[in-house]
Amino acid sequence: MYCLVKSAPLFLAVAVCNGWLFGDFVGKQKELDEIALWPLPQKFQSSAIAFQLSPTRFQIVQAKQSSAGPSCSMLENAFRRYFEYIFGDLKKPEKSRKKVYDSDLVELQVWVTSADPECDGFPSLQTDESYELSVDEPSMTLITRFVWKKLRLANSCDINGNMCKDPPRFEAMAMNKFNVFHWHIVDDHLFPYMSRTFPELSQKGAYHPFTHVYTPSDVKMVIEFARIKDLLTPCYSGSSPSGTFGPVNPILNSSYDFMTQFFKEISTVFPDAYIHLGGDEVDFSCWESNPDIQKCMVQQGFGTDYSKLESFYIQRLLDIVAATKKDYMVWQEVFDNGVKLKDDTVVEVWMGNKMEEELQNVTGAGFTTILSAPWYLDYISYGQDWQHYYKVEPLNFPCTDAQKKLVIGGETCLWGEYVDATNLTPRLWPRASAVAERLWSDKSMTDVDNAYNHLVQHRCRMVKRGIPAEPLFVGHCRQEYKGL
Amino acid sequence: MYCLVKSAPLFLAVAVCNGWLFGDFVGKQKELDEIALWPLPQKFQSSAIAFQLSPTRFQIVQAKQSSAGPSCSMLENAFRRYFEYIFGDLKKPEKSRKKVYDSDLVELQVWVTSADPECDGFPSLQTDESYELSVDEPSMTLITRFVWKKLRLANSCDINGNMCKDPPRFEAMAMNKFNVFHWHIVDDHLFPYMSRTFPELSQKGAYHPFTHVYTPSDVKMVIEFARIKDLLTPCYSGSSPSGTFGPVNPILNSSYDFMTQFFKEISTVFPDAYIHLGGDEVDFSCWESNPDIQKCMVQQGFGTDYSKLESFYIQRLLDIVAATKKDYMVWQEVFDNGVKLKDDTVVEVWMGNKMEEELQNVTGAGFTTILSAPWYLDYISYGQDWQHYYKVEPLNFPCTDAQKKLVIGGETCLWGEYVDATNLTPRLWPRASAVAERLWSDKSMTDVDNAYNHLVQHRCRMVKRGIPAEPLFVGHCRQEYKGL
Repeated sequence: MYCLVKSAPLFLAVAVCNGWLFGDFVGKQKELDEIALWPLPQKFQSSAIAFQLSPTRFQIVQAKQSSAGPSCSMLENAFRRYFEYIFGDLKKPEKSRKKVYDSDLVELQVWVTSADPECDGFPSLQTDESYELSVDEPSMTLITRFVWKKLRLANSCDINGNMCKDPPRFEAMAMNKFNVFHWHIVDDHLFPYMSRTFPELSQKGAYHPFTHVYTPSDVKMVIEFARIKDLLTPCYSGSSPSGTFGPVNPILNSSYDFMTQFFKEISTVFPDAYIHLGGDEVDFSCWESNPDIQKCMVQQGFGTDYSKLESFYIQRLLDIVAATKKDYMVWQEVFDNGVKLKDDTVVEVWMGNKMEEELQNVTGAGFTTILSAPWYLDYISYGQDWQHYYKVEPLNFPCTDAQKKLVIGGETCLWGEYVDATNLTPRLWPRASAVAERLWSDKSMTDVDNAYNHLVQHRCRMVKRGIPAEPLFVGHCRQEYKGL
Repeated sequence: MYCLVKSAPLFLAVAVCNGWLFGDFVGKQKELDEIALWPLPQKFQSSAIAFQLSPTRFQIVQAKQSSAGPSCSMLENAFRRYFEYIFGDLKKPEKSRKKVYDSDLVELQVWVTSADPECDGFPSLQTDESYELSVDEPSMTLITRFVWKKLRLANSCDINGNMCKDPPRFEAMAMNKFNVFHWHIVDDHLFPYMSRTFPELSQKGAYHPFTHVYTPSDVKMVIEFARIKDLLTPCYSGSSPSGTFGPVNPILNSSYDFMTQFFKEISTVFPDAYIHLGGDEVDFSCWESNPDIQKCMVQQGFGTDYSKLESFYIQRLLDIVAATKKDYMVWQEVFDNGVKLKDDTVVEVWMGNKMEEELQNVTGAGFTTILSAPWYLDYISYGQDWQHYYKVEPLNFPCTDAQKKLVIGGETCLWGEYVDATNLTPRLWPRASAVAERLWSDKSMTDVDNAYNHLVQHRCRMVKRGIPAEPLFVGHCRQEYKGL
């Protein structure tokens, strides 16, 4: 699974509950640590005034000018949720931290400015997630164009019901300003997507493929189904079929008929503008063993370069998807192999080896790119490995300003081989949070000691809200003393 | 924290509930996998007979000859607990797994044979934890000398109340046949043990030292208290004190007075026969900086070899502890530095470097040893690292049979720097289980593929009982489909 970062509104109300607001913070590390926002806003100013928020007086409302209106129930739900976050804490006041407040804030006005605030729609690459939060006592005003991103997550739940059964995951995503959950729904070994056009793809899987998918039995049944359909390439051992199967068979028209029907369905089921088509780590050994494929290689003049066959296949696949009016993302190999891509293709750079060169090439060719190479969370190691994730500067490659603009974001990946409900959350958080600040905050934020100080507090905030984010190092959270 | 393995009874009732009993299993890997016991018993025989256990007919009772008697409430509690384990599963029968049974078992008779079954006592190094389980339809009989180990865990809770608030930890220990929880209660940086003799040791710590101990504030307050008492060595920067403090000051009589009083208390509070005195990783730089220590080095003729001063200190400490009638364990450095140890000292070999040579030397000198070097669980890495723990053979060093007998067990260590309640359990289990089988089962069990097959099932058993043990690899547990 993946998470993708760009930017997002609606998160500062919580920070404000500590009685601090933005001010001229440049160089004032101590105060910056006390604010403990994560990821740090691009720009902020504080004042020395300490504001009080009282649960009996404070309210979150839409500003009169706001374009979203009272019918935007997702926004109203967000107000309720954040009110609970803020004042849930204050129900048990912490004795040791009594503060003296200078003033009272009684209202947060949320002003959505776009004529189409996307209240019932879906966010897109063009969605502007920036915001402004300001204080004019006794009110605060939060100005934002759209209602995203939290609401996007709620929406995707409507479509893919069972992905929402772990609400803390999504809460944590919102809390860290991630804005896309990339659901890596199918791969070589399984096909848990339940297709209306091809129901057997998932129904033939063992047990319940939507909830438990990585079983040997699933793999077997999916392969068996694909074989019956002639979708996969039969592998050969010497001159006879070995009984095993490799990648999609690229030399049969039926494979492309299947893809045409299938992506027609996919384009209607998923509202997203982009489909990630994969194309990474294709193993050619099965193709190489198959005499029909060998014959086709000769006919096409590909010699023994099977990456040319792969490109041939991917090319036709991309054309099929393009016909559905969807845009697509691909892994870097598809670009590397010279497949002709639509101008608005997003190329994902995931290989750590020669990453800078690849970024140069992809953006040099005019393609937008998303970088995931330095942020594979499944590679665990002893110690504070969040620092490695934090230190990477995604724009640190020789390029023009235009090329830099083509790097539209990054993605942090937690592949599921060693992960399930027992360890998902502590493995993901707060290590993914390190990537969140790298991708949201100013590039000058490179001091890991400073980052440690506010990430510790952000991690405690997640724990407080029920998300078991693992500790960065020794230490404890203040709330662990509650009631003692 | 540590866990130490030797051997243990009372765990087979659960395995039996699958309708399988022990038989001539040598070489029958398939059946062995179906039994899915972890760690594997040293010796067992199966029969082809499938027994049924019915919750309405089955009971666990003490045999008439049993020496423990009905007043051994811990044993009676264990019966209740295991009855629930067995039949908790059967309340929702799994439709897909209907078995045909050949026969009915109606009783498990537990026969404790020792005249002193240690029902109200504490286990010791001499406690024999072996057992025999046999079937004479319609009964099974479990013969064991003592009632340990589960009961030991319950006992230690009486003493150290807050260590028992995570019952799954202890359940998982019992399920994996670990028999000692080594509580690394104090270290350089903190002193959460609340001493009656020296209450300020912990009371001066910030917040609540029993529940939250690794805070900078704790460290500061503990150091401050020790400084006032002149317990720690003042470090120097040039010719004047730097304001920081190093290890215990070994040149003051008051340090030894303190230790005498303190260990007198400790010996009455903890019922255990052994106290682990530490002695690892002592940093000499503070001693080196201190002019009084330097002077003492000259007087004692130690030259500049501060390990001689350390030995001097440890020697006196050991004598103090020995006077309390307790035995002690020490880290290998204490032995390496030539400190004179009591004959029954246990030396813990924890350094991976030259481990075999160290085992040779320690056992060659006639000391019993416990090996932890290969089993540090805090060193996490990508992939199936349980296999590394599993593959280590602790007796694989050149030695006599007499020396081998001195290796009385092993310990798997999870140091707490990166661990708290959010990630403790999945990080500990089932990786620690790999060590459990290495230390309990026959040394011929070295095939990791076979081990994988039954460890997967053992991991699922833990998950089923509420212990979030992380997955070994892709896959799922059968119970995850319950109700679907």
